[in-house]
Amino acid sequence: MLNFTYFNPVKIVFGKGTIKELPNLIPAASKVMMVYGGGSIKQNGVYDQVAKAMAGRPMIEFAGIEPNPRYETCMKCVDSIRSEGADFLLAVGGGSSLDAVKFIAVASCYSGDDPWDFMKDPRRVPAEVLPLGCVITLPATGSEANCFAVISRDSTREKLAFSSPQLFPKFSILDPATTFSLPPRQTVNGIVDAFVHVMEQYMTFDAGSPLQDRQAEAILLTLLEEGPKAMANPKSYSARSNIMWCATNALSGLIGCGVPQDWSTHMIGHEITVLYGLDHAQTLALIYPGTIRHFQERKKQKLLQYARRVWGLADGDENALINAAIEKTEDFFRSLGVGTRLADYKIPAEAGKLVAERLAKRGRPLGERGDVKPSDVEAIFALRA
Amino acid sequence: MLNFTYFNPVKIVFGKGTIKELPNLIPAASKVMMVYGGGSIKQNGVYDQVAKAMAGRPMIEFAGIEPNPRYETCMKCVDSIRSEGADFLLAVGGGSSLDAVKFIAVASCYSGDDPWDFMKDPRRVPAEVLPLGCVITLPATGSEANCFAVISRDSTREKLAFSSPQLFPKFSILDPATTFSLPPRQTVNGIVDAFVHVMEQYMTFDAGSPLQDRQAEAILLTLLEEGPKAMANPKSYSARSNIMWCATNALSGLIGCGVPQDWSTHMIGHEITVLYGLDHAQTLALIYPGTIRHFQERKKQKLLQYARRVWGLADGDENALINAAIEKTEDFFRSLGVGTRLADYKIPAEAGKLVAERLAKRGRPLGERGDVKPSDVEAIFALRA
Repeated sequence: MLNFTYFNPVKIVFGKGTIKELPNLIPAASKVMMVYGGGSIKQNGVYDQVAKAMAGRPMIEFAGIEPNPRYETCMKCVDSIRSEGADFLLAVGGGSSLDAVKFIAVASCYSGDDPWDFMKDPRRVPAEVLPLGCVITLPATGSEANCFAVISRDSTREKLAFSSPQLFPKFSILDPATTFSLPPRQTVNGIVDAFVHVMEQYMTFDAGSPLQDRQAEAILLTLLEEGPKAMANPKSYSARSNIMWCATNALSGLIGCGVPQDWSTHMIGHEITVLYGLDHAQTLALIYPGTIRHFQERKKQKLLQYARRVWGLADGDENALINAAIEKTEDFFRSLGVGTRLADYKIPAEAGKLVAERLAKRGRPLGERGDVKPSDVEAIFALRA
Repeated sequence: MLNFTYFNPVKIVFGKGTIKELPNLIPAASKVMMVYGGGSIKQNGVYDQVAKAMAGRPMIEFAGIEPNPRYETCMKCVDSIRSEGADFLLAVGGGSSLDAVKFIAVASCYSGDDPWDFMKDPRRVPAEVLPLGCVITLPATGSEANCFAVISRDSTREKLAFSSPQLFPKFSILDPATTFSLPPRQTVNGIVDAFVHVMEQYMTFDAGSPLQDRQAEAILLTLLEEGPKAMANPKSYSARSNIMWCATNALSGLIGCGVPQDWSTHMIGHEITVLYGLDHAQTLALIYPGTIRHFQERKKQKLLQYARRVWGLADGDENALINAAIEKTEDFFRSLGVGTRLADYKIPAEAGKLVAERLAKRGRPLGERGDVKPSDVEAIFALRA
């Protein structure tokens, strides 16, 4: 096992009817800025639940955070905070609203010229940022249990991840009943996002960490079981609550303790979203089967373990087991209704070269050994035809 | 899944050579009281590592915390703190030193007549207690990742558990290399303690929490694999690190999120330690097979799942599977070298009645449904002859 530090001070408040806990979780003297996306929280009753819980407490709001939250939109919220005053941020909605709030928490306190600078150099994040909390209504990103965020910027066509320990939510309220009304596309996206989050911390090389492996497999197996149940019966509290808890556990940091990680699929996916507008999870379903196919030799032992423990495969030689596991992974994504091939999204053949060049320019190392080359990225795309 | 709140702000610093991080984890202006047990940390080099890391920083020390830490000893340390001054507590050693420090952190700030009162009524714990951290050298209790402690009092012959959210360690340093020199009895105790901690959160009734079940099974399976390796090769960093991480995960609160729990074996065990002087883990190895045997009907579905998933059993009808799983649990404990029968400890036949009466007097409900009767406790003892 590799040395590690694990720290996660988020208070998770999970279950039916927990939105009413809000006033107990936000300091009484705070002026709250509530940040949300489109109209879904107004249609599904979550907006009303928040308003009722916070009745009598000073709160202003900012609507219009989009999926893949944009720098430009976040900066409008920062202007609002500067003009109207607010000292606690409350994200209500999915990971996009929360990621936006994490950016806003820093940008509101940033004294440099361009807040985009701290995205590229987290040492520039000031020691004091605005405190934040969330009500999460879309289980997917795990943002409710970590200090990461991903923000896109139109003017530079960039989509970048950043993190800072000041950005853990003070609390995250997770009421599975708020997810009953999610459209199938968002339910699927959440399942795929959580599944691939786990895979990127699991599917590397063995570092002598059997507990973390099994903790990862625990989430994968549960998503395989509960995902189809939620698709078939969207108002199943049991299925919705299990998927929600899986998504949180997938990126709380725990399964990544002391193990090598390979986030190359996420990095490739961010470029695809910028270039072709795919949902984040669609990019993962598209690319991930190619990543494990292309790197099957270096991931061989873990692929075999995955084949046996997650898919219950036993027949055939090692190659047969690995092939079957990769196929079953793609079949699972397709069975949920998400595309897994370039043609499903009408992405042109030259995309591989373009993405490889963009990643090379960014200069961040990719893969569990940091040695993924542009030619590897192109090869992965070639496998997704 | 049941509603729950999960909060665990402990910073875990895990791995080889991490004791040298101490000065980065304790505020520079602090006057530290280091609290430890017998001489083992002087023999295995841990004392020297701590002294070297903290060189030049104000630190006093208190030695002599015993296994099953005693109120009377803790109060001596409180006197020391009051006379010499200290504003940060550092436990170095096993769960006993850390549990003692948790008690001392409260007792040092307690204004009531008798600090024993807050053990029975945690609402009496003052809002401000001394901050604390630890270097754990014996993986077992999980105290490094929770806000619980168990303290014994000679004068009243009591051994009581208490908890308060102020008692999470600020940090816990876990260096598996410090456990190389543990005597076999302590290694076994740690494995058994962690195993039964998991079982008491897992072996109840189904509450629709498949992820938590699998997270629990992940720890059990890893302990079954790694325990014998550590016994055979005490200097295996791999085995020692995996056991250490299992023990922490067993009682960090995560696997207990949203599930019913049954701590009756622990409560029975505490009485046995007070009456007959057994190590804590010995009481668990002795009683636990009786608890699941006696309650096999109400725990039937989970016992079957345990038989299949943890022990890989498939042959025979349901009764055969359950019998085999219970036998294998006891066999595992015995294979590590710990006694599992009353005769192994020369405990008299009347012990069951005595323990049942003591627990009845305490009046705390026992079991996942809170309905375990004195006659059940006696029946469990009868099964341990």
